[in-house]
Amino acid sequence: MIIVLKKGATDEQVEQITNKIKEWGLAVHLSRGIERTIIGIIGDEGPVRAKPLEVFPGVESVMPVLKPYKRASRDFHPDPSVVTAPAPNEKGRPAVFGASAVTVIAGPCSVENRASLMKIAGAVKAAGARALRGGAFKPRTSPYKFQGLREAGLELLAEAKAEFGLPVVTEVMDPRLVERVAATADVLQVGARNMQNFDLLRAVGQAGKPVLLKRGMSSTLEELLMSAEYVLNEGNPDVILCERGIRTFETFTRNTVDISAVPVLKRETHLPVIVDPSHGTGHCDLVAPVARAAVAAGADGVMVEVHPDPASALCDGPQALLPETFEVLMREIDGVAKAIGRSA
Amino acid sequence: MIIVLKKGATDEQVEQITNKIKEWGLAVHLSRGIERTIIGIIGDEGPVRAKPLEVFPGVESVMPVLKPYKRASRDFHPDPSVVTAPAPNEKGRPAVFGASAVTVIAGPCSVENRASLMKIAGAVKAAGARALRGGAFKPRTSPYKFQGLREAGLELLAEAKAEFGLPVVTEVMDPRLVERVAATADVLQVGARNMQNFDLLRAVGQAGKPVLLKRGMSSTLEELLMSAEYVLNEGNPDVILCERGIRTFETFTRNTVDISAVPVLKRETHLPVIVDPSHGTGHCDLVAPVARAAVAAGADGVMVEVHPDPASALCDGPQALLPETFEVLMREIDGVAKAIGRSA
Amino acid sequence: MIIVLKKGATDEQVEQITNKIKEWGLAVHLSRGIERTIIGIIGDEGPVRAKPLEVFPGVESVMPVLKPYKRASRDFHPDPSVVTAPAPNEKGRPAVFGASAVTVIAGPCSVENRASLMKIAGAVKAAGARALRGGAFKPRTSPYKFQGLREAGLELLAEAKAEFGLPVVTEVMDPRLVERVAATADVLQVGARNMQNFDLLRAVGQAGKPVLLKRGMSSTLEELLMSAEYVLNEGNPDVILCERGIRTFETFTRNTVDISAVPVLKRETHLPVIVDPSHGTGHCDLVAPVARAAVAAGADGVMVEVHPDPASALCDGPQALLPETFEVLMREIDGVAKAIGRSA
Amino acid sequence: MIIVLKKGATDEQVEQITNKIKEWGLAVHLSRGIERTIIGIIGDEGPVRAKPLEVFPGVESVMPVLKPYKRASRDFHPDPSVVTAPAPNEKGRPAVFGASAVTVIAGPCSVENRASLMKIAGAVKAAGARALRGGAFKPRTSPYKFQGLREAGLELLAEAKAEFGLPVVTEVMDPRLVERVAATADVLQVGARNMQNFDLLRAVGQAGKPVLLKRGMSSTLEELLMSAEYVLNEGNPDVILCERGIRTFETFTRNTVDISAVPVLKRETHLPVIVDPSHGTGHCDLVAPVARAAVAAGADGVMVEVHPDPASALCDGPQALLPETFEVLMREIDGVAKAIGRSA
Repeated sequence: MIIVLKKGATDEQVEQITNKIKEWGLAVHLSRGIERTIIGIIGDEGPVRAKPLEVFPGVESVMPVLKPYKRASRDFHPDPSVVTAPAPNEKGRPAVFGASAVTVIAGPCSVENRASLMKIAGAVKAAGARALRGGAFKPRTSPYKFQGLREAGLELLAEAKAEFGLPVVTEVMDPRLVERVAATADVLQVGARNMQNFDLLRAVGQAGKPVLLKRGMSSTLEELLMSAEYVLNEGNPDVILCERGIRTFETFTRNTVDISAVPVLKRETHLPVIVDPSHGTGHCDLVAPVARAAVAAGADGVMVEVHPDPASALCDGPQALLPETFEVLMREIDGVAKAIGRSA
Repeated sequence: MIIVLKKGATDEQVEQITNKIKEWGLAVHLSRGIERTIIGIIGDEGPVRAKPLEVFPGVESVMPVLKPYKRASRDFHPDPSVVTAPAPNEKGRPAVFGASAVTVIAGPCSVENRASLMKIAGAVKAAGARALRGGAFKPRTSPYKFQGLREAGLELLAEAKAEFGLPVVTEVMDPRLVERVAATADVLQVGARNMQNFDLLRAVGQAGKPVLLKRGMSSTLEELLMSAEYVLNEGNPDVILCERGIRTFETFTRNTVDISAVPVLKRETHLPVIVDPSHGTGHCDLVAPVARAAVAAGADGVMVEVHPDPASALCDGPQALLPETFEVLMREIDGVAKAIGRSA
Repeated sequence: MIIVLKKGATDEQVEQITNKIKEWGLAVHLSRGIERTIIGIIGDEGPVRAKPLEVFPGVESVMPVLKPYKRASRDFHPDPSVVTAPAPNEKGRPAVFGASAVTVIAGPCSVENRASLMKIAGAVKAAGARALRGGAFKPRTSPYKFQGLREAGLELLAEAKAEFGLPVVTEVMDPRLVERVAATADVLQVGARNMQNFDLLRAVGQAGKPVLLKRGMSSTLEELLMSAEYVLNEGNPDVILCERGIRTFETFTRNTVDISAVPVLKRETHLPVIVDPSHGTGHCDLVAPVARAAVAAGADGVMVEVHPDPASALCDGPQALLPETFEVLMREIDGVAKAIGRSA
Repeated sequence: MIIVLKKGATDEQVEQITNKIKEWGLAVHLSRGIERTIIGIIGDEGPVRAKPLEVFPGVESVMPVLKPYKRASRDFHPDPSVVTAPAPNEKGRPAVFGASAVTVIAGPCSVENRASLMKIAGAVKAAGARALRGGAFKPRTSPYKFQGLREAGLELLAEAKAEFGLPVVTEVMDPRLVERVAATADVLQVGARNMQNFDLLRAVGQAGKPVLLKRGMSSTLEELLMSAEYVLNEGNPDVILCERGIRTFETFTRNTVDISAVPVLKRETHLPVIVDPSHGTGHCDLVAPVARAAVAAGADGVMVEVHPDPASALCDGPQALLPETFEVLMREIDGVAKAIGRSA
């Protein structure tokens, strides 16, 4: 932590600050420049980070030196983490995130009915997807829109899992339901709107299942990593990070996929990183280009919405791919992955 | 709802869409222009809003005509709503939001200990505040920072309320704790990070207490109103909206207070609107100018953090006003309120 | 300037960097903490700011300590600057920015014809405006929209100035036209889209007239001050800064007025600061609330669009006030200004 | 154009608006719904777009139906345009944008001296670049930073062009210098800060050279296309669009590359689209992942900064690739391009 003092800060002010820091059990390094005096804090920056150093008389600004995340950082864990959702049964295979292969999660936005879910699950498995997505509980901006099949949706997901051996990724929004959702899900998804729902993060951290954590729509990457830290801090090492577009002024797309987030996160953290081009763009014709871009940028996977009849989808139809378009995309992903030295 | 067709959309495509709309029980109005054919949907737009009209062949864009909020809208309730937190006992008065007076909520960011809370409560009451704020449960970006006194914090708030007769405004973050927090709070605060925590919104909608709903840091005003709609839809008419700064690229301030939000919300909704200049700016020297601006723009109140010793505050010290500065601000607010024809 | 080294940076790397800094004629202050080694640069930060210190092996991050602006800063010029547009003739008075009075600039978005301009000029003068705005050269997003009367517009402005004795504020966009525009204008306006048109900034810096510099729609306040620095650096001390709304995700308003910009700028710089609520909101019903807020926040003035017949305005009609509404606003501004101890 | 009337708009108001529209020479289509009356304007929307329809009594909102760009649109020119910078001499080849090949522009951020420029030009040509970039005139936020070699920089670019036969891409910022810059440049670059410098756009539109138009840092894609329209409208059909990152709240990167801009622009316009990952990210370790992503998303080219000694670069050193890293990137781009069916 570095404290920059105002021009003309007095010796008395310097002393007051350095005394306070010593009280907190830390050492101080003083540097008197020509224009400004600077105080460096030596030792663990963590506890001081919460102190309101800006309000001490004479202080101009306070600059942290260390990153606030620990368990999520490359310093803490230099090698990449591999997160695995185990094979549900002998019909399937595990879904592995963070190894050489690019792993694709696919399925409908929301679970709608048995027939539709089975059809989609069969199609995405055939095309090479390694996990099935599908919302039973849906966060909707409006209370008047379809909120998901809830319990019945979980039961259908369990059926599809048994039938196709695909690990299931589904969202949980309410800490009261974490246990119930975890009974069906192989990966618990925390949605963008709940990225800083800290009670929920603690609850999924204790649920014993991998967590797919989506970036909030206006969250910095540092905040995303701090939310991962909540999960890791509960003893759950299995966190997959997901870039799903941030909110900007652009209106052609529903969100703006921050493609640089992929290499930045791969550098800052050991956790696997995937991209959701469906919510990230909101338009089916943009899903394939952005999915390919995600893989080219180094993502460990992508999560894509697929629906055989988008016009009758109960949720987010405009961004769903047809099964046949998804199949083409899977081949393109394979080509791009190989071009940059990964398998697909 | 208006559907704009692509240049060259075929008669067959027009027919497919109009048939679908009729299936949904709505009437259709067709307009063939020189460049584009346009389909207007006649009747209640609500149910159609969730339909993926964009994916029908031949569709270029879909434009809603009506606002998606109902109970929150001026159409539904033309006169301003007044939300009242009743006087806790004979020592105090009710806090009224949405009437002529500008109502000020003040107190510490988080409840820290008995002595400090009592001192602040006494000071803000003496200066003219009508309600006491103070966090017992604190949402913190980092799991390693002070998370609030929790249960003990609620007990201290209850003591301060009894002592000074000030209604208490405090945050609830977890649906499992709504009942407990509502036992102490006179106004339940939903924080910016939980503005789209829909399960929490439903829970506070059922709790029988007024709700202070803060705008999410990247939420549009339409989304804020839709979140209010979740609360109103549970039968709770007492929602106070709070602008607390949005996230932008500017770095001098913690957030950017959207001052136009005040007149826009006053036009769009009957619900009272207040501003939080403390979180909105993050710096104590900016709190008073922005609080005055909020009142000048027509806000029904402001919520301000006050701390007698910001340098030792456990949370957000840099943005707290000293009690003596707060007193000056109260006089300025009074002057500005009168200048625009309100009481203070 | 502070250089934070990576964990495990070698002595050799430290030496390479410190040698380089000494080569540039500056001294170095080394601080070896437990987690990180930090290098402080002692002396004038300016020349080092342009050096790519981030690319030296072993460097994690580089943090400037001093603000990059000099002539615009309070350090350089502690007292507020007063910028004056002199009275054009004996019929009028000077327009003064940065003294106790709140100064209002008003007029049409663009100059349209003689009759309309004279009518508006008369009305705004009668209501208390101290300067006349009006665009002769209009920056338009589309090449197919009205681009201003250009030369003829300047001539009409000169007539209105002579008639009413109001100093004229008008925009210049092209460095080739600075001399011509300066022959008519009393204040040269640089628009938001040209805030970083550095050749234009240099040209208006040499024109011998006060400059009204509008903040770019996605410019930080630091960048605004650096653009002012371009003008000041040419020897022109008369710069008025103008907040006119920044671009955010919110769609109810055309831009988001950053009200905190007023107190931040008043703290950081000695230059006068005004607000343009017309472009800042884009809707006439929001102009008055935001104009009052600007004054309450400490602005030295506001600039408002007025048009007697907005429905036939050639440009930005939806944001223009009727003369009678403007008159009401002038009285409100007067009240708010007095409430915070200023004249109006 | 569609006009939505307020609930309760009177017949008189409807008549006033429809009369006005007929006065402007257009036809009207009236649709009375249950909740709202809607007026559709039939005919060319262009002239009405500039009219302040929002201010007519009874109007709630106005929605354009057609896109405001014409010459840039796919409606106007369905097939992709190919823009060619001809080979300067027999030593080189033309640089072609918008055909099957992915075309790479590379070179230093700014021209610094003869030796360095020649070394870089040789290296990027050997690695497969088709055009040489290099700034002679540099837009800098601060007036105290290196502003480019100006005239001398152009002379060095001319030498490098002659020596290696590489077409030259260089920026022009001042309309007074367009002719001079065009004498050396094969492609005139308009930078992000000047995207809405309309006088400059008109000037480059008349210069007879292809124009590389960079997206403003907070410009929508619609605004980018409208700026292209300024150039096209002067009779110059050769515009290359360049996504170079937009301004968001994220701080890890200098800008946020909007990767979806590539497929959106390829759908909306016939003009070629390239990406600048160097300015888009601001960090050399992010350039290659984002460049690969751009190609995977369908970009027609990328523009990359290369410098043999970034630590001594006079401008933007942190984002420059070493020649050897650039060579690796060129092979990766080749692989990704082939994987999606393009040549490289």
